[in-house]
Amino acid sequence: MKDALDFYVPTFEDMLAAHERIAPYIHRTPVLTSSYLNELTGAQLFFKCENFQKAGAFKVRGAGNAVFGLSEDDAAKGVCTHSSGNHALSLSYAAGRRGIPCNVVMPRTAPQAKKDAVRGYGGTITECEPSTTSREKVFAEVQAKTGGNFVHPYNDPRVIAGQGTCSRELMEQTDGLDIVVAPIGGGGMISGTCLTLSNIAPETQIIAAEPEQADDAYRSFKAGHIIADDAPDTIADGLKVPLKELTWHFVSNHVTDILTASEDEIVDAMKLTWKRMKIVMEASCAVPLATIIKNKERFAGKRVGVVITGGNVDLDLLPWLNS
Amino acid sequence: MKDALDFYVPTFEDMLAAHERIAPYIHRTPVLTSSYLNELTGAQLFFKCENFQKAGAFKVRGAGNAVFGLSEDDAAKGVCTHSSGNHALSLSYAAGRRGIPCNVVMPRTAPQAKKDAVRGYGGTITECEPSTTSREKVFAEVQAKTGGNFVHPYNDPRVIAGQGTCSRELMEQTDGLDIVVAPIGGGGMISGTCLTLSNIAPETQIIAAEPEQADDAYRSFKAGHIIADDAPDTIADGLKVPLKELTWHFVSNHVTDILTASEDEIVDAMKLTWKRMKIVMEASCAVPLATIIKNKERFAGKRVGVVITGGNVDLDLLPWLNS
Repeated sequence: MKDALDFYVPTFEDMLAAHERIAPYIHRTPVLTSSYLNELTGAQLFFKCENFQKAGAFKVRGAGNAVFGLSEDDAAKGVCTHSSGNHALSLSYAAGRRGIPCNVVMPRTAPQAKKDAVRGYGGTITECEPSTTSREKVFAEVQAKTGGNFVHPYNDPRVIAGQGTCSRELMEQTDGLDIVVAPIGGGGMISGTCLTLSNIAPETQIIAAEPEQADDAYRSFKAGHIIADDAPDTIADGLKVPLKELTWHFVSNHVTDILTASEDEIVDAMKLTWKRMKIVMEASCAVPLATIIKNKERFAGKRVGVVITGGNVDLDLLPWLNS
Repeated sequence: MKDALDFYVPTFEDMLAAHERIAPYIHRTPVLTSSYLNELTGAQLFFKCENFQKAGAFKVRGAGNAVFGLSEDDAAKGVCTHSSGNHALSLSYAAGRRGIPCNVVMPRTAPQAKKDAVRGYGGTITECEPSTTSREKVFAEVQAKTGGNFVHPYNDPRVIAGQGTCSRELMEQTDGLDIVVAPIGGGGMISGTCLTLSNIAPETQIIAAEPEQADDAYRSFKAGHIIADDAPDTIADGLKVPLKELTWHFVSNHVTDILTASEDEIVDAMKLTWKRMKIVMEASCAVPLATIIKNKERFAGKRVGVVITGGNVDLDLLPWLNS
C-alpha cells in the first residue's frame, strides 16, 4: 500500500473539464504524416503539431486551464510565474484573453524575442539575474506585491490536466496508437500524457525523449528517485528543467521508458523534419524523432504518435547554420 | 464573337475528372489561419498549405493528372519534361507511383538538392546548359530518343485541370471566399484557379501576385497581350517563367487584377509567415501575403484565400540570412 501523497494528483475528470474550459481559446492542432519519415523509420508516425498552437506551443493548454479555472475574485488579482520560455508566452496569452494581469519573472538574459512576445500578449516582465537565488527572491517580491495566483510551468495539477488534453485529441485523430513519444523536461507534457492515456488507452506505451546532455529524467527513472542536474546545457533549451514531485509521480508510475539523443542527433532530426515535413519547430521537438531513428527496431511496424511541442524559434539563429 | 482557338482549353469536367484521378496520390492539404496575420492585415486569411503536398508543391496535381491519364500504351513510353524546379520533382514522383520512366532535362546549374530529389523519386536527369537554345536542343534529343509524352510545366490542359483541384478543395474547406490570391509565374496555378472558380464561384475575385522584378504577367495584363521578359531575376525563383497562350487565355479572361511586391517585401513576408505560422515555404509563396500587406485597404474585411504553393527550400540558404 502506498503512502498518502502530500499533493493533489489531477484526475481524468480534471482533464475532461480542462478540455471543455480551454476549447474556445486553443486550436485543435492537426496531425501530419510523412511517407518519407515512415520509410526511414519503418514505423507509422503521427505528428501532433502543437507548434501550430496558440502562442506557438502546447503550454497554452495548461496555462489556459489555470487562468480560465480561477474564480472571479482570484482572477482579479491576476496570475504570475517565472519562466524564460513558452510558459511565459502562454500564460500571458491566456491572461490577456481573460483580461487579467499577468506578471512574469524572466532572467535579464532571456532572448529579446521571447520578452517582446510576452509584452505583445499583454504580460508584464520583472527581470531577475540568471540564477535560482535571484529568481526565487524576485519572484517572491512580485507575488507578495501583486497577490497573483502562481501558475508553475509544470508542477501544478491544473497545468498537467491541461497538457493532458493534447494526447486526448491525438488519440481521437489517429484511431489509436501503440506508442506515444514526447519530449521530457520538467515533465508537464509527459505527465498530462500519462494522465490521459492511463485512462483511455492503458495499453499504449508512453516513451519520454530527452537530450543526453540534460538526462536528469533518464537518470531519475533508472535510480527510482528524482535527480536534478545542476546546470544542463543543450540545444533543446525547453528541456533543461528538472522533474518535481508531481511530474515524478506520473513518470515513475506510467512511463514505459526514457530514451536519449545526442546534440548532433537532435539537430539532424530537427533539420530533417523542417526539410521533409515543411514545419518550423523547436530543437526540443526533434528529440522524439532523434530517439526513434536511433532505436528503429523498437518502433518498426508500430503506430507511433509524436508530440511536436512548439515552434517558437529564433529564425536568425538556426542550429545547423551555427556549427 | 471570339476567333476559334487553336488550342484545347480544359473544361470544368476535366478538372472534376482530374480530381478523381489524382485523389489517391495527393494530400488534401490543410487550410491554416493566423489571428496575428488577420489582425495585421484586417482581412480574414485562409492559407491553403500546398507546401505540405506530396513532392512538396501543388505541381503534383497537374503532373499527376497528366501521368495517370495516359493510356497504357502511351504510359509505357514514359513522360518527359524540362524544368529546374518543382514540376521536375512532381512529374518524377507521379511517374514513380505509376511505375513508368520519367526523363527530365535540367540545367547543369540547378541546385544539387533538386537534382537529388528528382533522382530520389526515380527520375532520370539529362543536363543542359543554362540557356533556352541548349535546353530546347537537348530536350528535343531526349524526347526523340525516349518517345516519352511531353508534360509541359504549365502550358498543358491536363496540367491546368490538375492545378484547378486546389481551389476546389480550398472553397470546400472555407465555405466560400471573397478573393483568392495566388502567385503567378507561368500561370499554371492561376489558370487552374480561374477554371474552377469561374464555374463554382464566379463572384470570387482572382488576384495574381507577382515579384516586381519579374513582372511580365503584370505588364502583359496591362498591355492586353503576352510580354515575355528576357532574364528576370528574383528571389521568388519559381516565378521567373513567362505566360504562354493557354495560361494567357485564362489570365486575360478571368483574373481580376495583378499586384506586385518588391524583393524586400517578399523576404519580409516570407520570414513573417515562417515566424508566425510555423511553416516552411518558398519565397514564391510569400508574394501573395506581401501584396496583401501592401494593399490592405483592398482586402480589409474580406475573406481571402491564399495559396502557399510549395515548401522545397534550401535550409542552408535562407534569404534573410544572406543580405
